[in-house]
Amino acid sequence: MFTPINQDFSVAFSYQTHFTRGLFALNNPLFYQVLTQYSHHSARKLFFVIDKGVATHHPDLVAQIQLYVQQYPQDLLLTAEPMCIEGGEQVKNNPQWVDDILQAVEKYGICRHSYLIAIGGGAVLDMVGYAAAIAHRGVRHIRIPTTVLAQNDSGVGVKNGINYRGKKNFLGSFKPPLAVINDFDFLPTLSERDWRSGIAEAIKVALIKDEAFFRQIQQDCHLLNQRDAEAMHTLIYRCAEMHLAHIASGDPFELGSSRPLDFGHWAAHKLEYLTDFALRHGEAVAIGMALDVSYSYLQGMISQDEWEQILTLMQNLGFALYHPALRYKKAEKYALLLGLEEFREHLGGELTIMLLQKIGKGQEVHALDAATILQSVELLEARNEYVVVV
Amino acid sequence: MFTPINQDFSVAFSYQTHFTRGLFALNNPLFYQVLTQYSHHSARKLFFVIDKGVATHHPDLVAQIQLYVQQYPQDLLLTAEPMCIEGGEQVKNNPQWVDDILQAVEKYGICRHSYLIAIGGGAVLDMVGYAAAIAHRGVRHIRIPTTVLAQNDSGVGVKNGINYRGKKNFLGSFKPPLAVINDFDFLPTLSERDWRSGIAEAIKVALIKDEAFFRQIQQDCHLLNQRDAEAMHTLIYRCAEMHLAHIASGDPFELGSSRPLDFGHWAAHKLEYLTDFALRHGEAVAIGMALDVSYSYLQGMISQDEWEQILTLMQNLGFALYHPALRYKKAEKYALLLGLEEFREHLGGELTIMLLQKIGKGQEVHALDAATILQSVELLEARNEYVVVV
Repeated sequence: MFTPINQDFSVAFSYQTHFTRGLFALNNPLFYQVLTQYSHHSARKLFFVIDKGVATHHPDLVAQIQLYVQQYPQDLLLTAEPMCIEGGEQVKNNPQWVDDILQAVEKYGICRHSYLIAIGGGAVLDMVGYAAAIAHRGVRHIRIPTTVLAQNDSGVGVKNGINYRGKKNFLGSFKPPLAVINDFDFLPTLSERDWRSGIAEAIKVALIKDEAFFRQIQQDCHLLNQRDAEAMHTLIYRCAEMHLAHIASGDPFELGSSRPLDFGHWAAHKLEYLTDFALRHGEAVAIGMALDVSYSYLQGMISQDEWEQILTLMQNLGFALYHPALRYKKAEKYALLLGLEEFREHLGGELTIMLLQKIGKGQEVHALDAATILQSVELLEARNEYVVVV
Repeated sequence: MFTPINQDFSVAFSYQTHFTRGLFALNNPLFYQVLTQYSHHSARKLFFVIDKGVATHHPDLVAQIQLYVQQYPQDLLLTAEPMCIEGGEQVKNNPQWVDDILQAVEKYGICRHSYLIAIGGGAVLDMVGYAAAIAHRGVRHIRIPTTVLAQNDSGVGVKNGINYRGKKNFLGSFKPPLAVINDFDFLPTLSERDWRSGIAEAIKVALIKDEAFFRQIQQDCHLLNQRDAEAMHTLIYRCAEMHLAHIASGDPFELGSSRPLDFGHWAAHKLEYLTDFALRHGEAVAIGMALDVSYSYLQGMISQDEWEQILTLMQNLGFALYHPALRYKKAEKYALLLGLEEFREHLGGELTIMLLQKIGKGQEVHALDAATILQSVELLEARNEYVVVV
């Protein structure tokens, strides 16, 4: 008889997240070392895609890259001028960008052992990472995140994706990059909003996993508001470290239903769409967390004092905790509540939502009560009147 | 200092390849068992994509599927009528098909824990598998291969893909299916060419890995030509088994440069394009193998007797060993030789070609000599005059 054939194998993935300053300074060996450690071929082909916002704030960047690569004519080959593309969520909405990159991959002969390198914010990295994942079933991809959010969260992980038919990250894959390089020198030119926005993801990992980190952020609140470099670098490093540790220890390719790192994200995803992306991802996550923190408080999971501390920290960091979109209705129904079902559908399987048991410890639940969600919205609206940006 | 953060993890993959007959007969529990073993949710959503050729030869298939699913109203939910699509390589050339499936995924709420099921030949499975891999970063995908080639080779592996800008499998990913189900009852309606074509991949694994299997195919040659079911089932099972064992033991996601299972394939891929896919994949592989077997003989790697035995077996099975496209020129250059560089580029890194050391043992080389390739073409052309289909 023809018995079933069992196929079982494991695939090992390994990559490093580096931290540096002045990545393309001629005397900084890091970029060269990263490129040459993975292969023994001469003349490795490189192709860069750069976020237009970054190129504008760093007008010498392209010339620096060219000079840097020219130092190693035996080892590195810049196949073409870097491609500059729009940053922000819009780049994930238009499939033409992916196609443009795929055409460049074909035109310049970028093979699986060549390097497709993306420099930019989270949206650009998501989109270029997706193109890199599907071209030739995966070409080597290096991410150089330039925002707080990308350096401490989205850019260091294993996911990529684009939006499709109005649904966030509808297309994408799980594909570790070859390496991530965080250059802190991209941070000073960030807008106030982008500087702050990425802090939301640090608060997130702190709340669900590490009380000491939460206390550190409380302590550094003033420094962060004053755009102190050291305080921000420390925050990014710790957040990236915890984000990476979580991926490695759990379910890296999310084969199950649980997604603890999505604390606050079910509402955040919906708010981004409801505001047509006027809210930054981190801003939406802050509101989403404030909502789920309030829900946790109303359910008796955390104390009033903890609830107060968390919301105060977010407000002191300049985050709004309420947006009118929380009350938008569609055909008599709260759009926010529809977002809960969309979140379940994207993950698949059973609804799994992270709430808080205490500061530093999350707890998953499999249902949320609509009335308590709306009561949480009321709490936030009332509190929002007292927002003080320190 | 901010030292690099090392990220190391392994992801375990596991799936079964099943063998059955009458998969959708109401009393065959296999399909229900496969669907229910992976989740405890009720009302698992199913969406089927079916190769039009299969639907034509099996006009009751759609009704059978519907009746089968209706037996388990608590557990299974057919979200919509199965989608019927063109079979053959053309389905991989037009990106509209992928988009149609993605639209269905969105419309019918197919989530990561729902089932996107493909029934058809290798091309349909490649294309639907690609859509399943990128939708929601991967929805559950079950392959039901219907040709010899798909049942013993392409359908049981971990790759998917579509063609793009005239390049085969330019877009795709490595993504194991949830399960593969080979239903032998799809084989009797195959055309003569499709029946034979898939045997080429069995000869391939036999030549590079298992002399005993080669002897078995020699012995069963007449039975296979007479379309003996048992001989074919035995051949498919052994070939699938070796194909799967190779994937698990080696480099499943092809992170290196070596691809032993691509014996004979560098020329085959080029021949498919040069003949505008008038040659079936298996037919092209047979010519490609005959070429590399002849090259191995001319290089003194295998004996004349072995060369003779291999070519005789292929001819006795009805394979042509020569096609005029082997001599096509483009701007004074042999198109065939350009295919060698394209093959290297798709794999990336160093050129790695499998040749034969003896029947049952392959040997990789990193360069082929153009003059010897052309001499091999001459040998095949001369021999082709004596083709006898037994």
